[in-house]
Amino acid sequence: MSTPLRLGIAGLGTVGVGVVKIIRQQATLLQNRCGREITISAVSARTRDKDRGVNIGAYAWEDDPVALATRDDVDVFVELMGGSDGPAKAATEAALAAGKHVVTANKAMLAIHGQLLAGLAEANDRALRYEAAVAGGIPIIKSLGEGLAGNDITRVMGVMNGSCNYILTRMESAGLTYEEVFDEANALGYLEADPELDVGGIDAAHKLAILSALAFGTRVDFDGVEIEGIGCVKIEDIRHAADMGYRIKLLGVAQMTGRGLEQRMAPCLVPAASPLGQLEGGTNMVVVEGSDVGQIVLRGAGAGEGPTASAVMGDVCDIARGLRLPVFGQPADTLATAPRAQSATPAPYYLRMALHDKPGALAKIATVLGEAGISIHRMRQYDHTDDQAPVLIVTHKTTRAALNQALDAMDSTGVVVDAPVALRIESV
Amino acid sequence: MSTPLRLGIAGLGTVGVGVVKIIRQQATLLQNRCGREITISAVSARTRDKDRGVNIGAYAWEDDPVALATRDDVDVFVELMGGSDGPAKAATEAALAAGKHVVTANKAMLAIHGQLLAGLAEANDRALRYEAAVAGGIPIIKSLGEGLAGNDITRVMGVMNGSCNYILTRMESAGLTYEEVFDEANALGYLEADPELDVGGIDAAHKLAILSALAFGTRVDFDGVEIEGIGCVKIEDIRHAADMGYRIKLLGVAQMTGRGLEQRMAPCLVPAASPLGQLEGGTNMVVVEGSDVGQIVLRGAGAGEGPTASAVMGDVCDIARGLRLPVFGQPADTLATAPRAQSATPAPYYLRMALHDKPGALAKIATVLGEAGISIHRMRQYDHTDDQAPVLIVTHKTTRAALNQALDAMDSTGVVVDAPVALRIESV
Repeated sequence: MSTPLRLGIAGLGTVGVGVVKIIRQQATLLQNRCGREITISAVSARTRDKDRGVNIGAYAWEDDPVALATRDDVDVFVELMGGSDGPAKAATEAALAAGKHVVTANKAMLAIHGQLLAGLAEANDRALRYEAAVAGGIPIIKSLGEGLAGNDITRVMGVMNGSCNYILTRMESAGLTYEEVFDEANALGYLEADPELDVGGIDAAHKLAILSALAFGTRVDFDGVEIEGIGCVKIEDIRHAADMGYRIKLLGVAQMTGRGLEQRMAPCLVPAASPLGQLEGGTNMVVVEGSDVGQIVLRGAGAGEGPTASAVMGDVCDIARGLRLPVFGQPADTLATAPRAQSATPAPYYLRMALHDKPGALAKIATVLGEAGISIHRMRQYDHTDDQAPVLIVTHKTTRAALNQALDAMDSTGVVVDAPVALRIESV
Repeated sequence: MSTPLRLGIAGLGTVGVGVVKIIRQQATLLQNRCGREITISAVSARTRDKDRGVNIGAYAWEDDPVALATRDDVDVFVELMGGSDGPAKAATEAALAAGKHVVTANKAMLAIHGQLLAGLAEANDRALRYEAAVAGGIPIIKSLGEGLAGNDITRVMGVMNGSCNYILTRMESAGLTYEEVFDEANALGYLEADPELDVGGIDAAHKLAILSALAFGTRVDFDGVEIEGIGCVKIEDIRHAADMGYRIKLLGVAQMTGRGLEQRMAPCLVPAASPLGQLEGGTNMVVVEGSDVGQIVLRGAGAGEGPTASAVMGDVCDIARGLRLPVFGQPADTLATAPRAQSATPAPYYLRMALHDKPGALAKIATVLGEAGISIHRMRQYDHTDDQAPVLIVTHKTTRAALNQALDAMDSTGVVVDAPVALRIESV
């Protein structure tokens, strides 16, 4: 009865192939649910002739994704190429300008150009949807932007990079060093071509910036995310954390404070018994806290062919069913520019450092902390060697500013061997 | 710019009051997100004059919910009265017939009259939405029906009655009997006026029947749910389960099998380390398994003013934003009538029984199991008293039919004191 919804898919990597498979295998189910057929008109990728496990011979081929995005027989441009700029952005802009809807899995593009693209989509009265850009198969964009729309969202947190969580949990379970597990993960193909995107926290920070905009009605501000990778985490940190009932996670936290929007992506200690603490391997988890709903936890596969393609198809079904929403939950021109409140919320911190084995060294550190107004919850010297004394400190709640002041002052004492490892203990 | 969306709210209990509060307190946020104002035209409840903590003087009053539902100044009828029939059903039907949208939290009404009401809503081209009917604040209806629409759903499971989960976890943590915790929960107001709705598994089964329809594209079949309450669970079952690494949960499971749709709501053993096993107190959890997404877990408050009102408001926002979907994910007249496959999926079972202390009693039980084709994984006699020998058996995978045959045969042996407790061990 209704006309088919015709897709043009750019990018035939893991996710693109997953989308093609679902459209072929679930044709009847999709037609029942959407009230119309979902078809593929044309595809585009870097290489045409390649065994992908699906036959793409029935679809028109375009070398140029911009040409694909603007074809007359395409209603929805499905952007699965990746990269914040270049062809992905050019084709997305061209598609929206040509009156096509867009579904994308591109977190980098949205984190950096989200405001521009949202404005363009809304000016052309077209949908721009991106469930697959954040936390793979977990329907967090839909839950946050629609299901929880009646809530004043107070905090969004998440473990949103499966590779980092794999590394951290594997270090703990196998007792391996960061370097050993990093090499293992790289060999298994778990890391991006540029692994720094993963272990440096950048990929997860892209996702957090997108969630912030949707949660708080603010313009996407990726540059406002404080980012720290997991490279500083040593196996002894994981062990100390475990001894105290914590686990270390690369945790993203966004919250609106009296001083502005706080966005952090950094390794943190979280209670081992909490849902976040119990998260193993490559699984993702997003926690949303709202004025009325309280705390909602969503957990699922954060990457991979099936889960990510499932998220893409959720968006495609929404478009097929006629859903039209502002890209970030409210019109792009009404999104606020929030002041950046960098690590405004106080928290206890975990500190590990090695001191030169000189009389009075520990006293100097304690003094420096006291002078910065930081009180000590636990302090322990352990595993003493000939010339270095490793020290573990857990502070009471303090601000990151006070902590940074103390860390600078420690440096000047001359008793610290290397820069201390400082990890926030997040209340989850 | 756009016209306001005008609500008529019937039922001003906990949830109704929560909805009124959100609409008053979050007016600006709702307007930003929905692109229009959300207003309340009129309300209805059993008693007009009652201190509810919110002032309802600004809204028109109707004694009769049917009159409320059909008022000219009402666009959306919000049904929060409860009860499968009577005024709730009459007013819902009247609202849909009069061209109003309906948002309801009424699981009993949808479980029993879902097919009728969905047909009526679709015939009148109006939305009938019910996020609040299942698992409180957790956006499971939206996730299952929209976010995961690209998946062939294979199984839906959940702990969806917070009162039962409270009772079971409190028995374990406080070492109290079922009867003691039941009385405690009742005194705290945690149980329905008819507690059998909670502890008998009926309330949770209503929810499961709704999820099944949405997940599998089948007509709501509440009568097809095999229901077993938690009254059979003794503190020693909880302890034996814990010893073996399990916890007992009132778990709903719906899955499509080769023989038809299997829907079960019964106390089950689940691994203590699984997300379901770790669920404490009144929290709810729903687990969805799909062809592509794998396993998605959603967790949150299953009841209470804020969480349930949050779910109602999610539906109201959807309607304000123009979302129109078939009630159970596809047109009501295309929903299939699935054959009932009662406990078709084999599983291991936990059995506890007391035997008369006679020579050969244990052998008789073992023989009976063997004759039913059930092999024994563990068998243990413990805490022997003068005249009774308590026995604990864990079987290998078997069907419920074979187990029932064995239980009948055990009865005929004359060595069993009471009917054995038989709990399924669910793989989650």
